[in-house]
Amino acid sequence: MGDLIRLLRKGLPAEAVLTDPDVTASYATDMAGFCAAGNPAVVVLPRTVEEVRHVMRTATELRVPVVPQGARTGLSGAANATEGCMVLSLVKMDRIIEIDPVERIAVVEPGVVNAVLSRAVAEHGLYYPPDPSSWEQCTIGGNIGTGSGGLCCVKYGVTAEYVLGLEVVLADGRLLTTGRRTAKGVAGYDLTRLFVGSEGSLGVVVRAVLALKPAPPQQLALAAEFPSTATACEAVRRIMARGHAPCLLELMDRTTVRAVNALGKMGLPESTEALLLAAFDTPRAQADLAAVGELCTEAGATEVVPADSAAESELLLKARRMSLPALEALRPATMIDDVCVPRGRLAEMLDGTAAIAERHGLTIGVCAHAGDGNTHPVVCFDPADPEEARRAKKSFEEIMALGLELGGTITGEHGVGLLKREWLAREAGPVSMEMQRGIKGVFDPLGLLNPGKVL
Amino acid sequence: MGDLIRLLRKGLPAEAVLTDPDVTASYATDMAGFCAAGNPAVVVLPRTVEEVRHVMRTATELRVPVVPQGARTGLSGAANATEGCMVLSLVKMDRIIEIDPVERIAVVEPGVVNAVLSRAVAEHGLYYPPDPSSWEQCTIGGNIGTGSGGLCCVKYGVTAEYVLGLEVVLADGRLLTTGRRTAKGVAGYDLTRLFVGSEGSLGVVVRAVLALKPAPPQQLALAAEFPSTATACEAVRRIMARGHAPCLLELMDRTTVRAVNALGKMGLPESTEALLLAAFDTPRAQADLAAVGELCTEAGATEVVPADSAAESELLLKARRMSLPALEALRPATMIDDVCVPRGRLAEMLDGTAAIAERHGLTIGVCAHAGDGNTHPVVCFDPADPEEARRAKKSFEEIMALGLELGGTITGEHGVGLLKREWLAREAGPVSMEMQRGIKGVFDPLGLLNPGKVL
Repeated sequence: MGDLIRLLRKGLPAEAVLTDPDVTASYATDMAGFCAAGNPAVVVLPRTVEEVRHVMRTATELRVPVVPQGARTGLSGAANATEGCMVLSLVKMDRIIEIDPVERIAVVEPGVVNAVLSRAVAEHGLYYPPDPSSWEQCTIGGNIGTGSGGLCCVKYGVTAEYVLGLEVVLADGRLLTTGRRTAKGVAGYDLTRLFVGSEGSLGVVVRAVLALKPAPPQQLALAAEFPSTATACEAVRRIMARGHAPCLLELMDRTTVRAVNALGKMGLPESTEALLLAAFDTPRAQADLAAVGELCTEAGATEVVPADSAAESELLLKARRMSLPALEALRPATMIDDVCVPRGRLAEMLDGTAAIAERHGLTIGVCAHAGDGNTHPVVCFDPADPEEARRAKKSFEEIMALGLELGGTITGEHGVGLLKREWLAREAGPVSMEMQRGIKGVFDPLGLLNPGKVL
Repeated sequence: MGDLIRLLRKGLPAEAVLTDPDVTASYATDMAGFCAAGNPAVVVLPRTVEEVRHVMRTATELRVPVVPQGARTGLSGAANATEGCMVLSLVKMDRIIEIDPVERIAVVEPGVVNAVLSRAVAEHGLYYPPDPSSWEQCTIGGNIGTGSGGLCCVKYGVTAEYVLGLEVVLADGRLLTTGRRTAKGVAGYDLTRLFVGSEGSLGVVVRAVLALKPAPPQQLALAAEFPSTATACEAVRRIMARGHAPCLLELMDRTTVRAVNALGKMGLPESTEALLLAAFDTPRAQADLAAVGELCTEAGATEVVPADSAAESELLLKARRMSLPALEALRPATMIDDVCVPRGRLAEMLDGTAAIAERHGLTIGVCAHAGDGNTHPVVCFDPADPEEARRAKKSFEEIMALGLELGGTITGEHGVGLLKREWLAREAGPVSMEMQRGIKGVFDPLGLLNPGKVL
């Protein structure tokens, strides 16, 4: 321990090495529930690639496990410390190095906050789509580590589709460059994508080349009320089958609608069983919305309310963004699940989740990126009541089991972390797990990088 | 050898095991020049996953190297046989298993021809974008193996972006399932992408889940004549910087334009130094074309000719598609390069290529996916003249060196294969090569799968 601090300080300024136990303890966890965490022995906050390399060389020399961290807004425990580990926080590496409108790329350090990058590229008429709900806090490095998504994925895809190239410090301190900064490139195995979603378990991302899109027109939204989840999901099916390209297609179940009203006085219709929000950022958004509104009515919507203005649209989206805090306000604690199923199975997923909630006598509100089939059931409970906590955990797992049964995945955009580690093996199967472990061994033969996460 | 055939026939019908040397010799190469090839000991043509597994188990048992093949239209020698190998042709596994407009996916076997899939999904109002110029012959398995692109990539990206999940037979015959059939999914390391572009060196793809797009409106094109490559490339810069989303942005240099006229009597303007083709498949294609036409004029175009109809557009695109055959008609042989540079460096790439041609006294025509910075210099030469062949090879390599110097990659969409194997190490560097070799070792510890390719 004394050795570790002494060696670290040889390559890091004093203020970049935190050892005060009260301070280091505050770096122990991300936002996931039900995940074990230990006390870090030390927290380091490097500002340069060379400092990160020094950190990893030191870790390798002394065989100290390293837990890379961004803003710790993750929801799967991937950033949780292990006992005696070194926390490697990348938040001080927060420079936007380059924004290029001709190449449509940004080059950034991992600690850049998602919203900061989004606003910076907007000034150049560009758009960085991935928009996880924590976008005002979360970092690009964390987004890459967890493979995060957001509301816009139904049109623009997830973080992975925007990562063109990386610089990565390996476990032994060597620097690896992957990918490219050109529009295309297929030279060799795709190491870039291997790092996306790897939760810092293969290396430490210290720089990223990100693809950008031209800024689209401002989006226009509508809300549609449905008498059942089945009719709302039928609308989703029809919208997608008809070839529409909404930039947002979200579903809030009754529990979520009521919670949002309770928290935000939003005046959403409480009689609805499912509220669908659709938005378009196309040149003909009003016409697209009208067409989608008709499909909603055909599918059984009792009311369709298109926003007349960007301001009205923003209000609808605000209601959606309030879903998670609103559900969190219902009970002392929540666990948010992240199951993604084929669009055609969405109704079964929602109804099955409601049945699980009822069976366990729990409140589970669901908001869903319906256009992607990606549901976020939020299990509300009181951790002070061990029996209720047990039921919460049980239903959380039954929801994942249901997702797998319906041909889905245990995680659409939050990652595996600690929370779903045992479930990964169930989804991927033994052959895949063996290959994944083999890859881990190639990059991190001593097993020092974020041990116990993902695999 | 006797053992091999006997064992293969235990799990394959007689007609699926070809041993006639005249027949097996015809499977020795793909379309690349300058690449060594050996005689296969046997060619197998399985029709089922179980048959592929039997093939790989047999190969592992007897330690016989296996070269997977599709339509052998590849341009890097990735499908070339090695002496005494077993060629594993996937062309008989050509079923389209599923097309689902709600999920926007197709599930296919590897031997499905690209054009067959494209037409099949079009009947459902869907679109499979990747369109390599060999699309009427090449197979989806080959597209995945080489990571192929095409004309549409400037808007729609390359094959990699359409592969959601795979079934892969590993070297030892085990079946690996990767990825998903949902819109999103981040469970574990991204093994799917590892196989895209791996040229059959990590496993044999036997099934793929592909993402589809809604069919766009029919495209409308324009042609613009430029007095220099510099002005044409300046137009490309402006078009991309202004946020336009053409579905095609192609450049033909003077040599190519003249060759196309000579072959096809197309009546293209021979006085031009560079011809730019742009197309839009947007709802407002005419307005988009007009805006792009203006940018071309501003950048120095001497003439801008927008097509008035889909038929006229098709004629322009036909000229572009004729580029390669037209250049091939100039001399007994050609080598086609595939260097992708940042868009902003395209003019330097083109002018540098012209200088290389001049220095070596060779004809090198360039057609380029200009919107992606992806150039295809076609080196024309007579292989019967060893001195000319030597100069051709030299210039081919100088073109790659120039691409790397300009911050580009040695291959935008054709792959590494045999042809660029030594160049991969130059582009990727020793750390990346070590990691890539480590990954190869995880999937194929005996080194039986397409030995000598990629790495």
